[in-house]
Amino acid sequence: MNALRTVPNVVFCQLAALILAAEAGVEHPNIVVIVADDLGYGELSCQDPATDIPTPHIDALAAAGVRFTQGYVTAPFCAASRAGLLTGRYQTRFGFEFNPIGAKNDEPGIGLPVEERTLADRLRDEAGYATALIGKWHLGGTAPFHPMRRGFDEFFGFLHEGHSFVPPPYEGVTTWLRRKRLPGGGEGRWASEDGRLILSTHLGRNEPDYDANNPILRGSQPVDERANLTTAFTREAVSFIGRHRERPFFLLLSYNAVHSPIQADEAYLKRFAGIGDIHRRLFAAMLAQLDDGVGEVTAALDRHGVAGRTLVFFLSDNGGPTRELTSRNTPLRGEKGSLLEGGIRVPFLLRWPDAVTAGIVCDTPVSSLDIAATALAAAGVSTGPDSGLDGVDLRPLVAGEARPPSHESLFWRVGAQAALRSGEWKLVRPASQGKPAAWQLYRLDRDIGESEDLADREPGQLSRLVAEWERRDRGMVEPLWR
Amino acid sequence: MNALRTVPNVVFCQLAALILAAEAGVEHPNIVVIVADDLGYGELSCQDPATDIPTPHIDALAAAGVRFTQGYVTAPFCAASRAGLLTGRYQTRFGFEFNPIGAKNDEPGIGLPVEERTLADRLRDEAGYATALIGKWHLGGTAPFHPMRRGFDEFFGFLHEGHSFVPPPYEGVTTWLRRKRLPGGGEGRWASEDGRLILSTHLGRNEPDYDANNPILRGSQPVDERANLTTAFTREAVSFIGRHRERPFFLLLSYNAVHSPIQADEAYLKRFAGIGDIHRRLFAAMLAQLDDGVGEVTAALDRHGVAGRTLVFFLSDNGGPTRELTSRNTPLRGEKGSLLEGGIRVPFLLRWPDAVTAGIVCDTPVSSLDIAATALAAAGVSTGPDSGLDGVDLRPLVAGEARPPSHESLFWRVGAQAALRSGEWKLVRPASQGKPAAWQLYRLDRDIGESEDLADREPGQLSRLVAEWERRDRGMVEPLWR
Repeated sequence: MNALRTVPNVVFCQLAALILAAEAGVEHPNIVVIVADDLGYGELSCQDPATDIPTPHIDALAAAGVRFTQGYVTAPFCAASRAGLLTGRYQTRFGFEFNPIGAKNDEPGIGLPVEERTLADRLRDEAGYATALIGKWHLGGTAPFHPMRRGFDEFFGFLHEGHSFVPPPYEGVTTWLRRKRLPGGGEGRWASEDGRLILSTHLGRNEPDYDANNPILRGSQPVDERANLTTAFTREAVSFIGRHRERPFFLLLSYNAVHSPIQADEAYLKRFAGIGDIHRRLFAAMLAQLDDGVGEVTAALDRHGVAGRTLVFFLSDNGGPTRELTSRNTPLRGEKGSLLEGGIRVPFLLRWPDAVTAGIVCDTPVSSLDIAATALAAAGVSTGPDSGLDGVDLRPLVAGEARPPSHESLFWRVGAQAALRSGEWKLVRPASQGKPAAWQLYRLDRDIGESEDLADREPGQLSRLVAEWERRDRGMVEPLWR
Repeated sequence: MNALRTVPNVVFCQLAALILAAEAGVEHPNIVVIVADDLGYGELSCQDPATDIPTPHIDALAAAGVRFTQGYVTAPFCAASRAGLLTGRYQTRFGFEFNPIGAKNDEPGIGLPVEERTLADRLRDEAGYATALIGKWHLGGTAPFHPMRRGFDEFFGFLHEGHSFVPPPYEGVTTWLRRKRLPGGGEGRWASEDGRLILSTHLGRNEPDYDANNPILRGSQPVDERANLTTAFTREAVSFIGRHRERPFFLLLSYNAVHSPIQADEAYLKRFAGIGDIHRRLFAAMLAQLDDGVGEVTAALDRHGVAGRTLVFFLSDNGGPTRELTSRNTPLRGEKGSLLEGGIRVPFLLRWPDAVTAGIVCDTPVSSLDIAATALAAAGVSTGPDSGLDGVDLRPLVAGEARPPSHESLFWRVGAQAALRSGEWKLVRPASQGKPAAWQLYRLDRDIGESEDLADREPGQLSRLVAEWERRDRGMVEPLWR
């Protein structure tokens, strides 16, 4: 016992986990979670075969595993959604209800509360996983919240909500040729098409220096990254997989594609010469580059012989901001920012060749919360009631079992906006100028587009679901910031 | 108490049920179960919008209620399936495993065992319903098994497996013009197209006197029915609804369409002049006449103001015998007689305007066993474990509740043939010359056509499901006849 006491706690936990795994005769899978940014439900050719933007590599993930048609995130925008994903807990339990945008992300005390344990913390400390975050963080920009203090052995990426894909001084782009009034307001600026790059900017924000104070970091050191950021993140992910192929690893690959600014390399733009609208063509190029990245990551898993024992998730962090990016949420109503389905139902894929049959399309509602519950259970870490997790272990569901565990309800709160899904019922309360509007009620199995509000016609269901939302809301706390 | 003792038991039960209903403040719905005969999964335009045979009235039922995409019957042929439907219990629990065909149906002791209580018995005796069977019985041809001894106040129909749709001497048909070798063997005979009727006969059986000893009965009296039988059954159903509109009623409307012999009225044939194949054209005419019948029945419910409070089910008794009838089971594999999906998964609709939201498509597996469980629960009759019922009350499912009750597994046994559905897994054991062949294993959420046998690749699932089938099989008895 004295000898053990001298072993650092982390190492002891790793050893214990490995011993437990060996005893159970199971091999803990690698976990790879690939997050796309602002990718709408209606994009990806596996989601809509009639799309104008083929995504063969992401489609191949779906074909080799499970495509969930009713996969949800916990918030209709980035940081809050990622806080839920990374903890496996509703972010409203710990006050991460709003996005810390721009300089707000660097304020003291702003970030994923340090009392919360992340999926990376648990996999590393309780199951001996090598862990890495590659890409976007957006869960706090100051030291206490740095990813390497939140369970990640390695970090390559940036700490804010977004980043240019190409480095300044935007080589090859010398002239803003066109201005375009964007559909939702704001203005895009379009560079020469004969340069290396085409650039546009945010909806409503024309800031070429958007990321001047938001460097790309390796660990905590700024680096001068010259590659397209999507390509760079892919490169780093492939490297991490190669370096850790002998050991269970957890890779959170958090692309900022297809978030604004919409920018693309010429080679990708050329693929989509047939798309006339420059706005859509830029988006197509970004999505294709993301898709190629996913292809390279899966090829690396194959090349290192670990694809079978790697559990891969792919999802978007929220619905598509259609006006800004063109990213469609069809056939859903609403977009990024809304608690209608278009804001929170996202492309959601799972692949695990050694354990999960290929080619499944699953219509059961699932949540990004389930990623932590599933990954931890697969890694042999306790996910019982004491774990604080809000997710469901998806393994029985994807194994095709009868009566697999499922959510009694899914809960959302964003200030005055509120929503609940229970069975086929969807309760939504939009906000109007920051104040709660009336509750709306939809029946999703007959009205996926939330076109017919049943609140007046189904008063019994309405009051039952409002009571359920209020019951769940009592388990949440006030937001830490607005 | 003495006064009560003198009240006949049936009346007492009726009174008790009515009092209970009044106390609970709920109105017990009428129950109408419409059974089509041998109608394949791939027919009906609500099942396959690209069909060549529109079925607008049946489609309207689906649009106003629920269409179950995974509705099963308990046997791949008629009588056994109906025994399960009418008792709400697996027919293999009481030995009704095989069809009593022809004269066999009239042998002493052949029929639905008298110890079994039917849905009609229970609704009449425990909830005071008026009850009628209109159409095909096929659950025993001798007196002890007569429908009016099995819970039905009224009966109009026939007792055997099938019946000609037109009365002898087949007026207008004087010459057999053509013979046609049918795809599966056997031979059809086709009458003049300028006569009133076009007739064909069974696959492999050319018996114009098919029903000479199988009269149409009203109660137990033979009647000389001159109308097309589909039209006659519709007429009787409409009459029953009109006569009982003031009182909860249970109508089992058991059309023999689209079972052989395939025969059609000229008016219906004319609708399908565009279908070149006479075989398919006859089938189309029969199905359209059935569809019009359903339309008349629903119109009668509307006319009498009881549509809202009437729970209607529509289903087929088994899959389509495609070679004999052309009735397709697409995209399923197998046909009538097989425990592959094409033999047992059928069109399955539910409509209940006062209680169930319109326009639902439900992908949860359900069973014809659930009809009794749902109807009895809706009628306020106990359906608990003591009831002996094998079905699930579908009301929570169609209400869109989270985690509604569902079947842990569905079981089938027909001699050496066996099958089990558990979650997304389907276990099937075909028979070869009466002997059990090897078990096959399919994963239906990725392979609805049962094309890829996973038995070798998934030995763990295979043994688990075989064990589950064997466990369930121990609750069954030997067949009473073969």
